[in-house]
Amino acid sequence: MNNTIELLKSHRSIRKFKDKKIDENLLNEIIRAGQAAASSSFLQGVSIIRITNQEKRKEFSELANNQAFINDASEFLVFCADLNRSSMCCNWHEAKATEGFTEQFIISTVDTALLAQNVVIAAESSGLGICYIGAIRNNPQKATELLELPKNVYPVFGLCIGYPDQNPEVKPRLPLNVVLKENSYSDNKDKEIIEEYDLEIKKYYQKRTDNKKSMTWSEQMSGLLGREVRLHMRQFLKNRGFEMK
Amino acid sequence: MNNTIELLKSHRSIRKFKDKKIDENLLNEIIRAGQAAASSSFLQGVSIIRITNQEKRKEFSELANNQAFINDASEFLVFCADLNRSSMCCNWHEAKATEGFTEQFIISTVDTALLAQNVVIAAESSGLGICYIGAIRNNPQKATELLELPKNVYPVFGLCIGYPDQNPEVKPRLPLNVVLKENSYSDNKDKEIIEEYDLEIKKYYQKRTDNKKSMTWSEQMSGLLGREVRLHMRQFLKNRGFEMK
Repeated sequence: MNNTIELLKSHRSIRKFKDKKIDENLLNEIIRAGQAAASSSFLQGVSIIRITNQEKRKEFSELANNQAFINDASEFLVFCADLNRSSMCCNWHEAKATEGFTEQFIISTVDTALLAQNVVIAAESSGLGICYIGAIRNNPQKATELLELPKNVYPVFGLCIGYPDQNPEVKPRLPLNVVLKENSYSDNKDKEIIEEYDLEIKKYYQKRTDNKKSMTWSEQMSGLLGREVRLHMRQFLKNRGFEMK
Repeated sequence: MNNTIELLKSHRSIRKFKDKKIDENLLNEIIRAGQAAASSSFLQGVSIIRITNQEKRKEFSELANNQAFINDASEFLVFCADLNRSSMCCNWHEAKATEGFTEQFIISTVDTALLAQNVVIAAESSGLGICYIGAIRNNPQKATELLELPKNVYPVFGLCIGYPDQNPEVKPRLPLNVVLKENSYSDNKDKEIIEEYDLEIKKYYQKRTDNKKSMTWSEQMSGLLGREVRLHMRQFLKNRGFEMK
């Protein structure tokens, strides 16, 4: 196992940060490493908004489940899927941009996630810790207003980055043979494997340092998928130009 | 700049591979490193189908723009957004799964991309090269049949992995100050910056070893967004359980 693989496998979300700035050059280097990720048809359909204004930071913290550490992280970045830039390119070359297709939504969303994950790896390789903030989608309209996003840009997730002030355990992942299949999808044996994994996760939740609980993974999932979340996303996206045609 | 950041910044897609197998232990290690990526609400909403059957490989190569190197890569993996697994968890715990919401589509698609990008970094750190194959979405229905995917699972992209038999140049990315913005989105200065970048990309396309062409980035984008692509995605996803409610 090489050092990079070791780094990848040691990931855990950090929710408590030291009061220490990230050097501006390092931050730029980390973002550039992010940009080096693959991009579908070289669209580069991503914009990152760095929130340095403390008032704005506070509003993000509030709209994202009141997670206070969003205020304390050295950096809070909002990753946006961006088709506005390529739309502008169409205008410059007198082409009519085709807008609102599901495929374009997928391309720009995937571009955003690939770039962000590279940012994460670059940050973690520099001794920083991170936490993705999907909860900005609790109120994507407010987030859009705070960021003054134009049409055809939507906020996918936030990212806290900073120097870790905690050392949480790595959470065990699903066994490889559930996730990796050969030639075709079959879930015949999954129940048995997941039942064993359930016990492992239950033990992990009971023993971990923070936020102890007694719950298996499949229980957690049935709770998650058993309730309706963020039903506003469809209409919000439609309003922003992502019609899902 | 540390070694990991250097690795990230040296990424380029590889489309020509040596006839050399990837050690099975290494492959498993790479996938495990992928799984270590963050996952929204710990959904782990991803399945990977490894295509070892040469007939199936050929069919994928044909449906994905006849890209022959899909046959030659040591490994061809199809990354699927998977809500079937969590749906099964609901059944086991007698909860009714909420299905078809846009938010769930986003979560599982982002989970898939984050995991895949970790796989890519782990592979590249081991001397392997990769190429994402978004073109499997040219015929996602055929891909779904080949993979025997159940409802609530869709193929997001393929990934070729192997030992590189070419050494292409790194493609210059958009300048940082177009992609990274502070506190709010503004594109006032973007035209000027992109015009300069256009010249850089034109020079790169003219000089690179393979597939030389004379084109700026904004021209490329206006061509890309100026035509309608994969209009079938919406209906395909709907049929597979991703209704985008």
